[in-house]
Amino acid sequence: MKKIYTIFALSAASVAFSQIQKVEPAFWWKGMKNPELQILVYGKNIAGNEIELSDGVQIKDIQKVENPNYVFVTVNTNEINVPKFKINIKNGKKNIGSYTYELKERQANSANRESFTSKDVMYLIMPDRFANGDEKNDSTPDLIEKANRNLPNGRHGGDLRGIINNLDYIQNLGATAVWLTPVNEDNEKVYSYHGYAQTDLYKIDGRYGTNEEYRELSQKLNKRNMKLVIDYVTNHWGVSHWMIKDLPTKDWIHWFNDGENGFKRSNYKTTTQFDTNASEVDRKVALDGWFDTTMPDINQKNPLVLKYLTQNAIWWIEYAELGGFRVDTYPYNDKEAMAKWAKAITDEYPKFNIVGETWLSTAGQISAWQKGSKTGEAANYNSNLPSVMDFMLYGDLPKALKEKEGWDTGMNKIYNVFTSDFLYPDINNVMVFFENHDTERWNEIFNDDPKAYKLGLTLISTVRGIPQIYYGSEIGMRGDKNKGGDADIRRDFPGGWKSDKVNAFNPSNQTSEQKEFYQFTQKLLNWRKGKEVIHTGKTKNFVPQNNVFVYFRYNEKESVMVVLNNNEKDETLDLKRFDESLKGFSKGKDVISNQEFLLQNSLTIPAKTSMIIELK
Amino acid sequence: MKKIYTIFALSAASVAFSQIQKVEPAFWWKGMKNPELQILVYGKNIAGNEIELSDGVQIKDIQKVENPNYVFVTVNTNEINVPKFKINIKNGKKNIGSYTYELKERQANSANRESFTSKDVMYLIMPDRFANGDEKNDSTPDLIEKANRNLPNGRHGGDLRGIINNLDYIQNLGATAVWLTPVNEDNEKVYSYHGYAQTDLYKIDGRYGTNEEYRELSQKLNKRNMKLVIDYVTNHWGVSHWMIKDLPTKDWIHWFNDGENGFKRSNYKTTTQFDTNASEVDRKVALDGWFDTTMPDINQKNPLVLKYLTQNAIWWIEYAELGGFRVDTYPYNDKEAMAKWAKAITDEYPKFNIVGETWLSTAGQISAWQKGSKTGEAANYNSNLPSVMDFMLYGDLPKALKEKEGWDTGMNKIYNVFTSDFLYPDINNVMVFFENHDTERWNEIFNDDPKAYKLGLTLISTVRGIPQIYYGSEIGMRGDKNKGGDADIRRDFPGGWKSDKVNAFNPSNQTSEQKEFYQFTQKLLNWRKGKEVIHTGKTKNFVPQNNVFVYFRYNEKESVMVVLNNNEKDETLDLKRFDESLKGFSKGKDVISNQEFLLQNSLTIPAKTSMIIELK
Repeated sequence: MKKIYTIFALSAASVAFSQIQKVEPAFWWKGMKNPELQILVYGKNIAGNEIELSDGVQIKDIQKVENPNYVFVTVNTNEINVPKFKINIKNGKKNIGSYTYELKERQANSANRESFTSKDVMYLIMPDRFANGDEKNDSTPDLIEKANRNLPNGRHGGDLRGIINNLDYIQNLGATAVWLTPVNEDNEKVYSYHGYAQTDLYKIDGRYGTNEEYRELSQKLNKRNMKLVIDYVTNHWGVSHWMIKDLPTKDWIHWFNDGENGFKRSNYKTTTQFDTNASEVDRKVALDGWFDTTMPDINQKNPLVLKYLTQNAIWWIEYAELGGFRVDTYPYNDKEAMAKWAKAITDEYPKFNIVGETWLSTAGQISAWQKGSKTGEAANYNSNLPSVMDFMLYGDLPKALKEKEGWDTGMNKIYNVFTSDFLYPDINNVMVFFENHDTERWNEIFNDDPKAYKLGLTLISTVRGIPQIYYGSEIGMRGDKNKGGDADIRRDFPGGWKSDKVNAFNPSNQTSEQKEFYQFTQKLLNWRKGKEVIHTGKTKNFVPQNNVFVYFRYNEKESVMVVLNNNEKDETLDLKRFDESLKGFSKGKDVISNQEFLLQNSLTIPAKTSMIIELK
Repeated sequence: MKKIYTIFALSAASVAFSQIQKVEPAFWWKGMKNPELQILVYGKNIAGNEIELSDGVQIKDIQKVENPNYVFVTVNTNEINVPKFKINIKNGKKNIGSYTYELKERQANSANRESFTSKDVMYLIMPDRFANGDEKNDSTPDLIEKANRNLPNGRHGGDLRGIINNLDYIQNLGATAVWLTPVNEDNEKVYSYHGYAQTDLYKIDGRYGTNEEYRELSQKLNKRNMKLVIDYVTNHWGVSHWMIKDLPTKDWIHWFNDGENGFKRSNYKTTTQFDTNASEVDRKVALDGWFDTTMPDINQKNPLVLKYLTQNAIWWIEYAELGGFRVDTYPYNDKEAMAKWAKAITDEYPKFNIVGETWLSTAGQISAWQKGSKTGEAANYNSNLPSVMDFMLYGDLPKALKEKEGWDTGMNKIYNVFTSDFLYPDINNVMVFFENHDTERWNEIFNDDPKAYKLGLTLISTVRGIPQIYYGSEIGMRGDKNKGGDADIRRDFPGGWKSDKVNAFNPSNQTSEQKEFYQFTQKLLNWRKGKEVIHTGKTKNFVPQNNVFVYFRYNEKESVMVVLNNNEKDETLDLKRFDESLKGFSKGKDVISNQEFLLQNSLTIPAKTSMIIELK
């Protein structure tokens, strides 16, 4: 980081003549609930000049900082009666720079937009690895890393057009929301495809497409009654971000005096957030330490930073008509600042959903991150964060399916996860998943056994919460993080590139192995779409017996019985035990096979199989 | 259970002539905060007669129940101005039975009695297996099971006199509170030594001694500034309890229509208490199922039962001058009734401590049982129970010490336990232990390795909470529950019987192996006695590195640094990392060796060793 700091020092000493180089946000909207807008104006030594707004627009506040290349101008949009006004930079009477600022009209009902809920199934895509819809943008002159499909960690050329081209596939599969890992510009030299080292927070990476294409994707999803979910990163930016290269204030990011040129790696112990016993040094390293060398840790405590992140988040919602946020490395951020950030966004969009990547291992810790939780209250904290991820279920699910039944093994391990649901204030707004882009692939763990896949998918699709699936697993894709690193769990989707021999986007081209995964997924997720009883119904769990887990989802209108047999042999259940949930029903219909049967004394379920039974 | 129900039916049909056979409580006290007293009067068909009290004492309420052998008479003790009055049973004008009821004077300061806190170390004794102080009571004519030391599960003759005789030993060891497993009468045919199948809640088992001897033990402990803690059992009584054999009401205990003669074994899934998803049937089997065939499950929901349990508990505190309760199988009880029970007791004795056996595996679940917890509040519950047991630490501690360091293994596993302390409303009032009378013995797990014992004891004696140790481990006693069952972890203390070859109560007789355990224990616990910084100080934990865990206990007056090296090799720590806790201190004194040293750049700690360092 010494290099970066040198650049900053040079900037501070630069000459007193300025052109406007950047204005962020580049435009804004009228009629936001919060009328206050803070405009960042960037240019060489701009702070040495006067700022003037045209058309009588008043400056409410102007902030200059250590670095004279920045000024932060605050206006009240409620008081502005023109659609456009000018920001003029004056050196004495001389106008040395000008920018036309626009306040756009909002889309109808924008504030009240719908967002993803437990009605949805989230499809997670690594855009570089899904489909290459526009070969012309595989490499661009202004961005350093060029496409090279031979490099596992290189850029492969997947893009927004590739996703747009395959919306039928995603929709037919049964997903209703799409979470893309970050698509903003990430101009690192290598390893840029993952996008988490963003270098411009207002610009889609040219190798994925344009801001307009991103909005097009969102609009096309919305037309299908689907939602686009951004992967927002508040915790860190890329080391090559233009603001990191010319820091507005030294405390824009976190530095360590005892680190290597300011850098220190996080200890990743985010339990220190609520741990009353944590040492200051551990907490500091956890929260302020860098996630990686190329990702300076952003200081959300700085009000200018927080405002920047808040406005940027709102800008993308409004501009791209978004349907939700997934927020990266949530517990690594300053938690008080993030509570303000989440509140500001949900104040603007009351139905907007934000799910934090709460990678912790206990329900006590995870639930503490959900808005209004008692567990958070125990730590004097309210996150304002609507949704969290059930990493406890994620951790225990694959272990459980490989175990025989014991007091806390096998299906009892899964059952145990749900016994702590009472700690969550909004258990339906919890994301459930068995893998994502950071984990071993499910089909790798289970050696592409479709039975294990079906058990896992049945579970996450029928328990409380918002199921999230990961691109490619629906056709049996594997990936071994332990052996091949991240690249291996982010392989290219077959058919996403013209040169691919097989196009698995077309179900008729799928191999019989792929079909088995795909058809089950499609059937189950499309069934789930209309099932309010799954989206918001209550749950009744029965303690697993003989490694068979039975639960019911029910509401006033309907009931569904789910049976998961984790044994290598068929099991016969005495249905009498489930009287309280079967009362009034005489027939069942299996969702996958569509077969109807009478509910008699017993039910036999084949080895390593799930049944989803609509009760009638 | 069919047999029991038959007896009850016969009683109900018995003749209308009565003598008083039992009155419970047998006497009471003036000046209790709650002046209401409910007296159970038992005699053949007693309910067919009139009840009259002498000396103008008024009956506030009289309850008759299904079984005519019982009446429940309520009086207001505030309104009674005589020290004694008569309960007369009248058949017309004829007095057919009489009992003189006494209201005693309370001990001075009884209501404000002290109870065990984190200042104390609890010594857990199985009285039948500790010391035989009175051979005359090894067997008694009225109690079925006779002494036979050759039977692992038989009665061995240990008694209250044996404990009284060895108070010097216990006190010198450094314990300040003594928890005896139940000593009330348990007149089962076999397996009666454990005492949990109580057959008379107002009477010490004759093979342990008398009520007077029990009080003598308590008084002698109090004189030493030590406390006697009763092991109270609300969840079940013995199948041979006189009231179980002639049930006042059928719903005094729990029955299962689909059980074997009413009996059904608990599924032990007490997570169902707070689990909003639990099925009714699972919850019912968990809470109402019997802990074992000889232990009918008591129905605390019945107000007469609850009153009986409450008055009995208060009676023992007042009579025997007790210093606390440990309550068996806490989460198996009706939780609303238990909240009333705990409140009634702590209303009478505001400083009285009650620790529940909360055998659950997560901090979220355990903390929900502590009074005023937010986690309880999440389930709309306030237990009123002051203290809970940290079964999470118990479960993880031995595993951790056998592991190498990993993300969540080795010392990180222990550290992780404490990261959820924020969920407990009163973390100092949590019992910490690594074994008890129901678990594998620590020294069995670690093959009598004194290093492992010292690491374990250092930890539980210096972290937050109330350390609890188990008789015999301080001289290296082993016991393998997996092989020898409960009997093996409840072996006789060597020296407790005249015929024993070695008397380990006398430290000079101990083998060198025993001495190593004993002397460490004695040194550590006696040091702990005066250390407010350990009793109530704050904690600062440092994330383990290289399988070494360092934490500090501190208050305004002093600081203690604890270092646990779980490696097979020596480790050298860079002390700079602990600056925030070492600031202002230049010297350290190791509590065990008494050696002083300068705090310089580094500290070397030998393999598998702990250091407790007073900072100066």
